[in-house]
Amino acid sequence: MSRLTLALDIMGGDNGPHIIFDAALTALQKTPHLHLILCGPLTIMSQWLNKQLPNIQARIRLCDCPQQVAMDEAPAHALRYKKQSSMRRILDLVHNNEADACISSGNTGALLAIANYVLKTLPGIDRPALVSLVPTINNGKVYFLDLGANINCDSEVLFQYAVMGSVLAEQIADIKQPKVALLNVGSEEIKGNDQVKQTAKLLTDSQHINYIGYVEGNDIFSQKADVIVTDGFVGNIAMKSWEGLVNFAIQEVRKASQHNWLSKIVANIAIPFFRSIYLRMKPDQYNGASLIGLRGIVVKSHGNASSESFLYAIREAIEQVEMRVPDKIKDKIEAVLMERHE
Amino acid sequence: MSRLTLALDIMGGDNGPHIIFDAALTALQKTPHLHLILCGPLTIMSQWLNKQLPNIQARIRLCDCPQQVAMDEAPAHALRYKKQSSMRRILDLVHNNEADACISSGNTGALLAIANYVLKTLPGIDRPALVSLVPTINNGKVYFLDLGANINCDSEVLFQYAVMGSVLAEQIADIKQPKVALLNVGSEEIKGNDQVKQTAKLLTDSQHINYIGYVEGNDIFSQKADVIVTDGFVGNIAMKSWEGLVNFAIQEVRKASQHNWLSKIVANIAIPFFRSIYLRMKPDQYNGASLIGLRGIVVKSHGNASSESFLYAIREAIEQVEMRVPDKIKDKIEAVLMERHE
Repeated sequence: MSRLTLALDIMGGDNGPHIIFDAALTALQKTPHLHLILCGPLTIMSQWLNKQLPNIQARIRLCDCPQQVAMDEAPAHALRYKKQSSMRRILDLVHNNEADACISSGNTGALLAIANYVLKTLPGIDRPALVSLVPTINNGKVYFLDLGANINCDSEVLFQYAVMGSVLAEQIADIKQPKVALLNVGSEEIKGNDQVKQTAKLLTDSQHINYIGYVEGNDIFSQKADVIVTDGFVGNIAMKSWEGLVNFAIQEVRKASQHNWLSKIVANIAIPFFRSIYLRMKPDQYNGASLIGLRGIVVKSHGNASSESFLYAIREAIEQVEMRVPDKIKDKIEAVLMERHE
Repeated sequence: MSRLTLALDIMGGDNGPHIIFDAALTALQKTPHLHLILCGPLTIMSQWLNKQLPNIQARIRLCDCPQQVAMDEAPAHALRYKKQSSMRRILDLVHNNEADACISSGNTGALLAIANYVLKTLPGIDRPALVSLVPTINNGKVYFLDLGANINCDSEVLFQYAVMGSVLAEQIADIKQPKVALLNVGSEEIKGNDQVKQTAKLLTDSQHINYIGYVEGNDIFSQKADVIVTDGFVGNIAMKSWEGLVNFAIQEVRKASQHNWLSKIVANIAIPFFRSIYLRMKPDQYNGASLIGLRGIVVKSHGNASSESFLYAIREAIEQVEMRVPDKIKDKIEAVLMERHE
């Protein structure tokens, strides 16, 4: 297989660069054709690189970046003043075709803004989306978008999200004719706001999308759909509320565990279990999130990511490169636009 | 204390009228000044009433209603063709001042439509809201609205929701200067859609609301606010997604319990615990939901309610009557409107 190059922002995570170094090393060991460009302060990176075996060193390029985007930095500020940052550099590398994809676990808002500016959207796509996999019953998964890239989405943008989610489910999750649903307040046709109703019409009219209709909030985890589309306002609030709910449940278990020795034992067994659900309910932490619709592949790993979840993000990026996801999105959008003019 | 009369729709629940009869009996026994008007088919009601003690019989009036609104009936259909239904009758009784408040566990959409038509909104209130208490950490509770009464809410409607939620928290939960927050995708001022930003401005400008700013999805259960306001689209999807998430967690526990005898025991102890969280996460089931902003008190008990949760709905209705919630909402809205003209 031909060489595949990823650019990694080593300054993004809350847990320091070693999380990313560990993931990088594992990925290089497991994927012989993988090459990496690490972006960050040279001293930190070379100190680590010098300790590695020659065949690993040969597949890593270091790219010194004196600046760093802070986790709480305003996206507009990062876009304007952080042109020498590791986050900006990984996107420049994708834009210049020096890297096939990039990964950051930094400030999501800044990553969205800079990626949008540097890479631009694909032809036919108005706005990128932030998408992640949400676990469902029976070990299923659903592509859920948008997680907050765009707060105001008209029906055309929501339609494009459906196309992009459908391509991801087909190419990455290997689902033939993935079932695409719109998130709504009821499953009957008359339900919902104008934006949702208009999107439903666009989806019903397209032969290229296997549109199954509306799903409600309680259907998200039920495996009814392979792709669930909503605007970034609803998607962001829903996803964050799941995180809050599981946190709340963990607190309740802790409280219940104070009653007697039996409840203490039960709680000690139950809490790790809750934690695992908690992690699964923070999909961007567990699975990484992808920024799709751009002329390049951008994967977002959680700021608080472990080495394991950063590795997951690397694998996601590799798969998107190998399945040529941006090209497939472009093709599908073209087909849909052609269909409208027929 | 002077007589207090509630009208109960006995045909609403999925579990049959006996759930409601049981709750009615308990309420009458515990609240000496309570009188009830039961609405439904006369034969069912009189069969039950004949078995009761004379002092209970004396405080119950039966109101024969030949029609019933089905759980899946379109609200417009119910409004037009079910004028002899038990749901319509309880609202007529409130409208005619024969009852101080009414309770139904029937079709929410139909109840909203008929209540809005029969009772009309209070002066200064454009649209009613569906509100419920959501549990938070440390045994706290937050008034969360709108749960789906209105899908499209402009900033003026959201502002009115903040006023109504604030009145409920003050009068029913007895919180001085309740902290009111807007649900948003970030806590910084620049975040959110126009509708949220405009509402924030209205709330900041008002001396009558203790507005604390934006909260995010993960803050809902964290006790940051006493009242959280969002539009019915987001509120409905968020609340239903919590139901879905807890259901999903229960399934996961069941699955995990298949591993060995120890996990089976743990699961058997954990599942009832999960169920209790599940019920708390379906706030309208656990706490009932109130339809506020109307010229009358309407409490919605869940369709699948137990006798206990219907009793909770009765207590909620009694409290709203005793605290004169609609009058207080009217007064507060008047004060706010006066303030704007100063």
